[in-house]
Amino acid sequence: MTEHSLWRFSRALHRAINERQVDDLAAQIDDNVEWAVFGPIDMFPFLGARHGKAAVLDVCRQIADNIRVHRFERESMMLGEDTGASMMRYSLTALDSNRPISLRLAQFARFSNGLLVSMRVVVDTFDLVEQALGRQIHLPKIA
Amino acid sequence: MTEHSLWRFSRALHRAINERQVDDLAAQIDDNVEWAVFGPIDMFPFLGARHGKAAVLDVCRQIADNIRVHRFERESMMLGEDTGASMMRYSLTALDSNRPISLRLAQFARFSNGLLVSMRVVVDTFDLVEQALGRQIHLPKIA
Repeated sequence: MTEHSLWRFSRALHRAINERQVDDLAAQIDDNVEWAVFGPIDMFPFLGARHGKAAVLDVCRQIADNIRVHRFERESMMLGEDTGASMMRYSLTALDSNRPISLRLAQFARFSNGLLVSMRVVVDTFDLVEQALGRQIHLPKIA
Repeated sequence: MTEHSLWRFSRALHRAINERQVDDLAAQIDDNVEWAVFGPIDMFPFLGARHGKAAVLDVCRQIADNIRVHRFERESMMLGEDTGASMMRYSLTALDSNRPISLRLAQFARFSNGLLVSMRVVVDTFDLVEQALGRQIHLPKIA
């Protein structure tokens, strides 16, 4: 049985982030890839939408400039023939502040001929913002 | 072909929220269901973790007290035999303020014998908080 594209992609992505080696990653991304990590781009310019391999490799380099991945755990997981979705919990360090960040996200990936053609990621962004700021944001109770 | 449990559950959930009719929903939830919608519970007490059918029905009633669903769109979707994951975009109204809220989330559901046994939801919470507040939160640029 061939390894699912998601596992290969995941390894290459983590290597790109932690070792700044994007060659493996580049070989697994379709030229016309659609990429979106939803979140506040004013604070984190490496979030947001990108189109095309060059833009995605560039944003992965930006992510590598800003975080280091220590650990991740897949809390939920689904695999299709050319698709994969997972809910993940990451332990990161924000490199500028050296702050530890614990992050929950969900990713939906789609592959074609083994190459990533679509990646969409939802992040628990309020939790991320508070941890990156290093302080709580006061919120009124609305309910 | 039998209808997937996720579609039945999804209809019952939306009916529970918009019409405050939880009977259909109650019939589709396992007694020992695990439920978690990750987000700032200080502001939204109906987010967070719940265990057991009674607690989940109770939190669905709280959600119904606070929002109305106008529209939703499944942007990504995966179905397994007893599992379903989707990335969704909701158009809601916050009932206390009458504010429109556009919300992106990812849900991972697991069923056993047609009953929901696990639901985990990641929400783009920063976007949610800003819309519920009705103003932007100033963020420093960190990257």
